[in-house]
Amino acid sequence: MDSSLLPFFQPRGVAVIGVSTSPEKLGHGVARNLMASGYSGAIHLVGRKAEMLFGHPIYSDIGQVPDPVDLAVIIVPPQDTPRVLAACAARGIRAAIIASSGFREAGPEGAALEAHCIEIARSHRMRLLGPNCIGLIDTYLPLDTTFLQSAMPSPGNIGFISQSGAFCAAIIDWARGEGFGFSQIVSLGNQADINETDLLPAMAADEHTRVIVLYMEGISDGRRFVEVAREVTRRKPVIALKAGRSESGQRAAASHTGAMAGSESAFDAAFERAGVLRTDSAEQMFDWARALADCPLPPGKRIAILTDAGGPGVIAADALSTHGLDLAALRADTMAKIRSVLPPAASTVNPVDMLASASPADYAGCLRLLLSDPGVDAALVILPPPPMFRAEAVAEALIPEIRSSAKPVVVALMGSLLTQQAAESFRRARVSTYPFPERAASALDALVRRSEFLATPPSDDGANAGGKEVESHLTLAPRRSIAGDSPEELLSGYGIQFAPLRLARTPEEAAAFATQMGFPIVMKIASRDVPHKSDAGGVRLGLDSAEACLVAYTQLIEGVSAAKPEARIEGVYLQRQIPPGQEVILGAVRDPQFGPLVMFGSGGVEVEGLKDVAFALAPLTPSEAERLISRTWAGRKLGGYRSLPAADLEAARYALVQISRLAMDHPEIEEIEINPLRVLNKGAVAVDIRMRINPQ
Amino acid sequence: MDSSLLPFFQPRGVAVIGVSTSPEKLGHGVARNLMASGYSGAIHLVGRKAEMLFGHPIYSDIGQVPDPVDLAVIIVPPQDTPRVLAACAARGIRAAIIASSGFREAGPEGAALEAHCIEIARSHRMRLLGPNCIGLIDTYLPLDTTFLQSAMPSPGNIGFISQSGAFCAAIIDWARGEGFGFSQIVSLGNQADINETDLLPAMAADEHTRVIVLYMEGISDGRRFVEVAREVTRRKPVIALKAGRSESGQRAAASHTGAMAGSESAFDAAFERAGVLRTDSAEQMFDWARALADCPLPPGKRIAILTDAGGPGVIAADALSTHGLDLAALRADTMAKIRSVLPPAASTVNPVDMLASASPADYAGCLRLLLSDPGVDAALVILPPPPMFRAEAVAEALIPEIRSSAKPVVVALMGSLLTQQAAESFRRARVSTYPFPERAASALDALVRRSEFLATPPSDDGANAGGKEVESHLTLAPRRSIAGDSPEELLSGYGIQFAPLRLARTPEEAAAFATQMGFPIVMKIASRDVPHKSDAGGVRLGLDSAEACLVAYTQLIEGVSAAKPEARIEGVYLQRQIPPGQEVILGAVRDPQFGPLVMFGSGGVEVEGLKDVAFALAPLTPSEAERLISRTWAGRKLGGYRSLPAADLEAARYALVQISRLAMDHPEIEEIEINPLRVLNKGAVAVDIRMRINPQ
Repeated sequence: MDSSLLPFFQPRGVAVIGVSTSPEKLGHGVARNLMASGYSGAIHLVGRKAEMLFGHPIYSDIGQVPDPVDLAVIIVPPQDTPRVLAACAARGIRAAIIASSGFREAGPEGAALEAHCIEIARSHRMRLLGPNCIGLIDTYLPLDTTFLQSAMPSPGNIGFISQSGAFCAAIIDWARGEGFGFSQIVSLGNQADINETDLLPAMAADEHTRVIVLYMEGISDGRRFVEVAREVTRRKPVIALKAGRSESGQRAAASHTGAMAGSESAFDAAFERAGVLRTDSAEQMFDWARALADCPLPPGKRIAILTDAGGPGVIAADALSTHGLDLAALRADTMAKIRSVLPPAASTVNPVDMLASASPADYAGCLRLLLSDPGVDAALVILPPPPMFRAEAVAEALIPEIRSSAKPVVVALMGSLLTQQAAESFRRARVSTYPFPERAASALDALVRRSEFLATPPSDDGANAGGKEVESHLTLAPRRSIAGDSPEELLSGYGIQFAPLRLARTPEEAAAFATQMGFPIVMKIASRDVPHKSDAGGVRLGLDSAEACLVAYTQLIEGVSAAKPEARIEGVYLQRQIPPGQEVILGAVRDPQFGPLVMFGSGGVEVEGLKDVAFALAPLTPSEAERLISRTWAGRKLGGYRSLPAADLEAARYALVQISRLAMDHPEIEEIEINPLRVLNKGAVAVDIRMRINPQ
Repeated sequence: MDSSLLPFFQPRGVAVIGVSTSPEKLGHGVARNLMASGYSGAIHLVGRKAEMLFGHPIYSDIGQVPDPVDLAVIIVPPQDTPRVLAACAARGIRAAIIASSGFREAGPEGAALEAHCIEIARSHRMRLLGPNCIGLIDTYLPLDTTFLQSAMPSPGNIGFISQSGAFCAAIIDWARGEGFGFSQIVSLGNQADINETDLLPAMAADEHTRVIVLYMEGISDGRRFVEVAREVTRRKPVIALKAGRSESGQRAAASHTGAMAGSESAFDAAFERAGVLRTDSAEQMFDWARALADCPLPPGKRIAILTDAGGPGVIAADALSTHGLDLAALRADTMAKIRSVLPPAASTVNPVDMLASASPADYAGCLRLLLSDPGVDAALVILPPPPMFRAEAVAEALIPEIRSSAKPVVVALMGSLLTQQAAESFRRARVSTYPFPERAASALDALVRRSEFLATPPSDDGANAGGKEVESHLTLAPRRSIAGDSPEELLSGYGIQFAPLRLARTPEEAAAFATQMGFPIVMKIASRDVPHKSDAGGVRLGLDSAEACLVAYTQLIEGVSAAKPEARIEGVYLQRQIPPGQEVILGAVRDPQFGPLVMFGSGGVEVEGLKDVAFALAPLTPSEAERLISRTWAGRKLGGYRSLPAADLEAARYALVQISRLAMDHPEIEEIEINPLRVLNKGAVAVDIRMRINPQ
């Protein structure tokens, strides 16, 4: 971790500046929580009145505070903050939390104050958390710099970084009711200095933190976030709840790619690239986090369900299937052993339904059998209030099996009063429980995804996109200005064939253009009034000489004019004849946060209607390009589908890698789109290209 | 309600048969719960030992039990059940709950016992609930016939019908922890007699039940369920959790329609037709039910968000947008009034963010202003633990505003310990609270959907499908056997034009077929080895005479043979030339539960890849057909899209209504599919048709 952040996480002394003896003041709350947290370093209070608080003197100035003091928590009115910050700097403090609000979030005046604070901090190499934040909590150090009314969370293994202080406050209280704890919590506030990207490696370095959850509404430097997060996620799982979807406006777009690439597509692509699990709801974020903090990872996605009731077992099976997880096929000997201990009417086929008479020993014995089946990667145990036994007896029987297993087990503990003691036993044993099978299944899905992510070698996921894997394909085009390049030259520099369409307005022009383009040539009538050109006799194929073009021009114009006298005809379009194939769209658009975002999918004019497209951050390795392609129907059918013959998937993949490189190489390209790219039996040809350049 | 069900819901006396003095026996539990429930009618106990239990004598035989006794709860071993049932019948009892298990669910022997019970019941006009069920609960009567360890739920307004007893048991305990109650709960068990369809009207007739939730894994008579439920849902909302998705096997299919119509599509279509809200999770089912039981319905979907914290407000806005709800645009005077009471940095644009200093009076005052804005249909209030006030004070201030408003308000009460008292206040006042904004938004969505459903006139949703609306279109084909009909005759009987494709193997055959079909004619080479027929010169358009066909046949065969010497050629396909248009798929497949299920969407060979299809139960009214069409991209683009001209939507709608009628009229049709139907500028023509007939 960046050593300048150490004073936040290992301060030898903390000064609270702006304390008050009135309990309703926030400055009083900070002092109270810091004392109550059990922080073992030096605690110093600074305030306007020279009184005592909680047995500590209140100094009137930070300059009077004795050593050691590594961290200042500032909660004075915004207009006083720059002065206090400067005094801290003069005192040699290099880390400050500004908890006060009234800065950038409050308007231009506050923004000026915030800018002033940044200036002071920069000039003294001081790091700032906030302003407008609730500070930080470390349950192991321990340290609590917040002013919240809630008690400090219990120690746990979840690290929580939040761009919303109120969300932190609510979660701290909620988690206490749910019975889970945190290792560290950091509220970012306005992020005048420290942001989520700075904190990720710091939190990942904490030995007690096993999983990091991130609430964010925006991002300061998208590319840097991806770079840092992809390193962190190799070591510890990161889950993000990114809010503000509905605020993502449509961007001005000159292409389908631009029109479809909302900033949410960019966030999705960035999280995917970084290995961050994205969640859609706060509840789900912590459902996943609890499982990731406490469960081993499953070797695969074959899940066994153990239940004493059919209905919840069916619900669990549905939920697993929704997440794409598999119901494990149990081995015959596993089923035989289970059958030998259960009543005859019990179901020994997964979901294993032990029936309502299931005893604590039945639960434990069957779970042990399931976990020892090599075809089972994880188990979901369902425990409603058992009609004949106490739920806590079942819990006590299950816990040793769960804790001693190398495979993950999550429990759907359904109920409330009758299952309360069981819930407490499970919590103490760090077994993840959920009130319904659906949520337990979702937690298993998070474990499986984490396991699959770690199984993908990092070298394969884009880190070397600029490296050998791509360059082996061809000698790369030099990175140079594209000013003056024709689209044809630009694409050919990246090894993509282009067959442009040209409009000829006279027979002679048609013959001349055709000669430049190369034969055979396709000629089509150019008229907006003739939508179905083939049907109107407006298409000629296989023209193989200038003479043939001269003749065809006249025939085409005359034929269509005769058939459709009302049609306005501009001339004819010429194109080198491309063999039949499958047509796809490739595009790239520059996202303001994350840089070039690449799109692949079903092309034509219906791109936005069909929505069969997928996005990824550029640059792409060939294997990333292949994954992107396989996420769309257009991509899957390149392998052939019914009467549709297979096309050159490799050529499509290559073109996609190259367009991602092109977009990376030329930051002046705002949007570029090949629509369609015709993927042939062998090779692929760009039929049409659109591009928008930023003139600056 | 069916009067034969009255003894279950209004018994003057209840006999428990199979009681035991041993507390661990289920028969003891039933007696205990019945006593504890406060049931005010006569309670009779029947058991093997003539002892006393809870101050009541235990009779050895139901024949000895004095009047009144309307309902028997039987919990004796399965093999004794038929005898006991017969004794009940002889005693004049016409309603029995068989709580014992060991029947159909346990194997063939149990199934025979169950069949025997049904026989006895039928012959005495006796109604049965179960076997293998936990019985029923009515919290107002009150009555509890279960053997569950949990106390009876508190009285509420949710009626609950469940096909799983264990799920009931878990929910009863969970609801107690969550603080909500039920009006009635019925566990269906094996449904030897009474099923969910029988119970729906009975529960809807209960004055305390405001919403019915239904847990189901299957259905006994799908069409009857739809018929009954569509009547019930006009009066009271019904929410269904249908489990067993993952068990829906693929059906054998001869068409795309058959391949894509899993039984889940049929359930979706049936719930849609019946006005039943389908949910995917147990938690969501009760989130919706609580809102529907306690909130007024919103006049529209414009939602105001009131919060004291930005983050949760953003999360709420995202969730509303996910559900297709709108953020209300506040009137200028509403915003001005809100601005006048809040600090300058507060946001008066929806989401209204009062900032962390918001007082109970601020919450109440701002909510009142929002609810009085005519542009606001409902409100979502977010209440995390307030930093300066107690949450319960905010709750007390909000409750009168919420209770006095004709518009619904749901509360995201985020936290646990600090919000506990507020939660209790809200519960007492019947205000729906949710722990996170996402769940509150989902509950609002259920209210909006319910409101929109009631706004759709029932006459418009298929009740009159056989009535005027359809018949005005044409004189209907008589309902007669289709044996011997050609597809052409069949479709033309329903007013759908068909342009069949015929294979000619000689020039003379081509000329003869063309003359039968009518000119102009399109001729295409018939060869599997020539996938791109146009490109290979294998297509001729506009042939307008028998002579032209003779000549064209020879030219086509010779041309293609020269270009593709390796291609095996079968002859040529002939079809009456149809003008260009848009191509869609229409199909119907017979679902074993729900009868004919109609499909509409993007046709061609890629139906299953694109998955741009939607389903509805037949028959369809024109307006239902229009809704089905508009749910697909293929349907939306019939209105025209970019360079694609609009096609005859009315003709497509008409064909869809007619194919739904055709499928209704001919139960012997297992599958019928028009792919494609070419929708022209004026009219629509079936280009190809497939049909599978059940020979029985």
